[in-house]
Amino acid sequence: MRVVDLINRKKYGQALSRDEIYFLINGYVNGTIPDYQMSAFLMAVIFQGLNSDERLAFTQAMLESGEVIDLSHIEGKLVDKHSTGGVGDKTTLVVGPIVSACGVIVPKMSGRGLGHTGGTLDKLESIPGFKINLTSEEFIKQVREIGLVVMGQTTNIAPADKKLYALRDVTGTVESVGLIASSIMSKKLASGADHIVLDVKVGKGAFMKTLDDARELAKAMVDIGNRVGKKTVAVLTNMDEPLGEMVGNSLELIEAIETLKGNGPRNFTKLCYELSSEILLITDVAKTKEEAYQKIDEVIKSQQALNKLRQMITYQHGNPQVIDDYSLFPQAQNIIKVRSLKDGYVSEINALKVGEAAMILGAGRQTINDTIDLGVGIQVIAKVGKKVRQGDVLAVIYGNGKNEEEAYQILLDNIIITNEEVSPLDIILDIVR
Amino acid sequence: MRVVDLINRKKYGQALSRDEIYFLINGYVNGTIPDYQMSAFLMAVIFQGLNSDERLAFTQAMLESGEVIDLSHIEGKLVDKHSTGGVGDKTTLVVGPIVSACGVIVPKMSGRGLGHTGGTLDKLESIPGFKINLTSEEFIKQVREIGLVVMGQTTNIAPADKKLYALRDVTGTVESVGLIASSIMSKKLASGADHIVLDVKVGKGAFMKTLDDARELAKAMVDIGNRVGKKTVAVLTNMDEPLGEMVGNSLELIEAIETLKGNGPRNFTKLCYELSSEILLITDVAKTKEEAYQKIDEVIKSQQALNKLRQMITYQHGNPQVIDDYSLFPQAQNIIKVRSLKDGYVSEINALKVGEAAMILGAGRQTINDTIDLGVGIQVIAKVGKKVRQGDVLAVIYGNGKNEEEAYQILLDNIIITNEEVSPLDIILDIVR
Repeated sequence: MRVVDLINRKKYGQALSRDEIYFLINGYVNGTIPDYQMSAFLMAVIFQGLNSDERLAFTQAMLESGEVIDLSHIEGKLVDKHSTGGVGDKTTLVVGPIVSACGVIVPKMSGRGLGHTGGTLDKLESIPGFKINLTSEEFIKQVREIGLVVMGQTTNIAPADKKLYALRDVTGTVESVGLIASSIMSKKLASGADHIVLDVKVGKGAFMKTLDDARELAKAMVDIGNRVGKKTVAVLTNMDEPLGEMVGNSLELIEAIETLKGNGPRNFTKLCYELSSEILLITDVAKTKEEAYQKIDEVIKSQQALNKLRQMITYQHGNPQVIDDYSLFPQAQNIIKVRSLKDGYVSEINALKVGEAAMILGAGRQTINDTIDLGVGIQVIAKVGKKVRQGDVLAVIYGNGKNEEEAYQILLDNIIITNEEVSPLDIILDIVR
Repeated sequence: MRVVDLINRKKYGQALSRDEIYFLINGYVNGTIPDYQMSAFLMAVIFQGLNSDERLAFTQAMLESGEVIDLSHIEGKLVDKHSTGGVGDKTTLVVGPIVSACGVIVPKMSGRGLGHTGGTLDKLESIPGFKINLTSEEFIKQVREIGLVVMGQTTNIAPADKKLYALRDVTGTVESVGLIASSIMSKKLASGADHIVLDVKVGKGAFMKTLDDARELAKAMVDIGNRVGKKTVAVLTNMDEPLGEMVGNSLELIEAIETLKGNGPRNFTKLCYELSSEILLITDVAKTKEEAYQKIDEVIKSQQALNKLRQMITYQHGNPQVIDDYSLFPQAQNIIKVRSLKDGYVSEINALKVGEAAMILGAGRQTINDTIDLGVGIQVIAKVGKKVRQGDVLAVIYGNGKNEEEAYQILLDNIIITNEEVSPLDIILDIVR
């Protein structure tokens, strides 16, 4: 098998066999296939795509390049959740406790990520003492005893994907549905869960800008999941404005806790209910959407979901008092209000720009070595469709003296007020099963 | 300027500026841009192409990466010729002496090449004593005194092209009109000639399989040549059957000499006249095609063209007696005739297969380290359209004991005889000015 022949076949739009894809991935990981051949191949994939069989083979070859966690000895329905990433995305911190309180087991491994705010792990680290690195034994024990863990991804999950992603990042070969789907699924399949729910973000603040692109990606991932025998569902959700109100690490954790207390922002609460209900459906914990919603209402009202979070914090060495006393979180010194300059309706809130404002305040990382200020962030009070008067607060900056004026200007420029009435955005756009 | 941004722009079908292309080529040559980014860029070019401005910039950036020979101090019309390569292509050895005898100066640098037979240099080396490596002083002296040189390309011509070609070869990024045109033209522009004639081969035995592809390549090259102020013309010629009768090194040299003596095969003679006449036209040595043909007839009949070859051989330390005594060339021990198994008409002669047969006899190189047997080769007596009877000789194998039976079988299988009458092939398909 010659690599150049495989590159040429893909270039001419032909499909590669399972063996050929394994040959490429394995050769790339063990160094017998050089970067320059792989990047040419990836660019050919950008133009010619991968079919369902190729995506499956790609996913499995990357999966098998690393460790696969075996949780088959754990009784019960195990679920993993993945979000393609958005601004203000603290969903895992609400959905995990909810479905766990409903009896589903959530053994979640999460990443740190670059970008506007930290990843779920960074958010959890705003809880004093919280430990994100667990040993395999601690992980298994916690899964067995409370059915909910959110921990750091072990380094040896799908190393082929890691190596390939680094190459794609510098060679303009990121945006291929087949490659993105395979990359995400290779990591999800390694987690040992037998049910997978995918939150595919769509819009200005997301990687997928159009509903069509997002649907294509969702279908590709659901197809891969189902073909390997994992029940998989994808929810397409709106990322044209920030999710919830809070963008920032401790701020988002507080918002998650509030949502578990039943006081979350309407749209974010809707998203958490929808994702949770889909999990309850695929795991057969609920038979209908209505039943699922009832169960979720129940665990919220009874505080069972909140207590799950409390339990998880306790197991992972965090201070569970944060749930009742938010002053235990890292704080911001300066609170600056961004007020509307005119009367009208909020027509647009550029989520990416809000993320950028949070990042320059110190909430996120631009490079892997940046330190995060867990206390800073932004509260976006405005929502698309909201009627506002001159002087109304559109957003609140929580800063510690870094780039606050720049953040102020970004927010003022990117929360657009028009004279015409505007409809609020739907958070749930589609579900792909 | 970030390389990944340039890759992305090309991927999305946007044109790069002159500065951006120089940045890519220079960075690649000096090692600041790694292979894996360049190969991804090249694959994007395969799909999105290069426009006229980009091709020009690509050509010039590669040209300027190396030595450019300055012949501006030489008085007269200087011409360079390039063939995209075919089976049995000894055209330079005839066209060079003809136009030189007509007063055009031919300072030609040639390559060795892999493939069916050696390059023009290998063919010349079948002349005992012939020297292909000249110093700059020897080169200039010979150009001044006799107006005809065919020598080895100096190593420092367009090193960017050399490095890029090596990468394209192993990454499936060869077949782009823009890249091929730039590659060829970057070397042609280095030779210092101010007129360029391109022989673009089309057909089964050529790199360009269809007339449309060949025409596109020809137009791209003529465009580049004209834009830098070199008068450039391309002749599209048929490579569906081998050129002339002879395939092999000393055999082709003998055929070139015979053609200069006025005894060449009809089609090959036609090609040499056509290329020569185009050179006489672009250099203004002739005003019309008729006048050009007359001048060519004259230098053939008067033996002025043959004497030019004799002069060149003498200047380059070869034995000029080979022109009159072919027994001075390296010889083959075994002469094997391939005879027709039936009556009919020759309908097809797969030129590539004839080349392959010559190569396995020892006439060509598969790898850069192979040694060539200058005496072996094949004479293809059959021509498409020719009427043959059972037992007629279709081809003659000149072998030295290596793979003769295999060559025999290849020839028998690839010279197709049908019952229906077949028209002979036209050698000249189009001219692009």
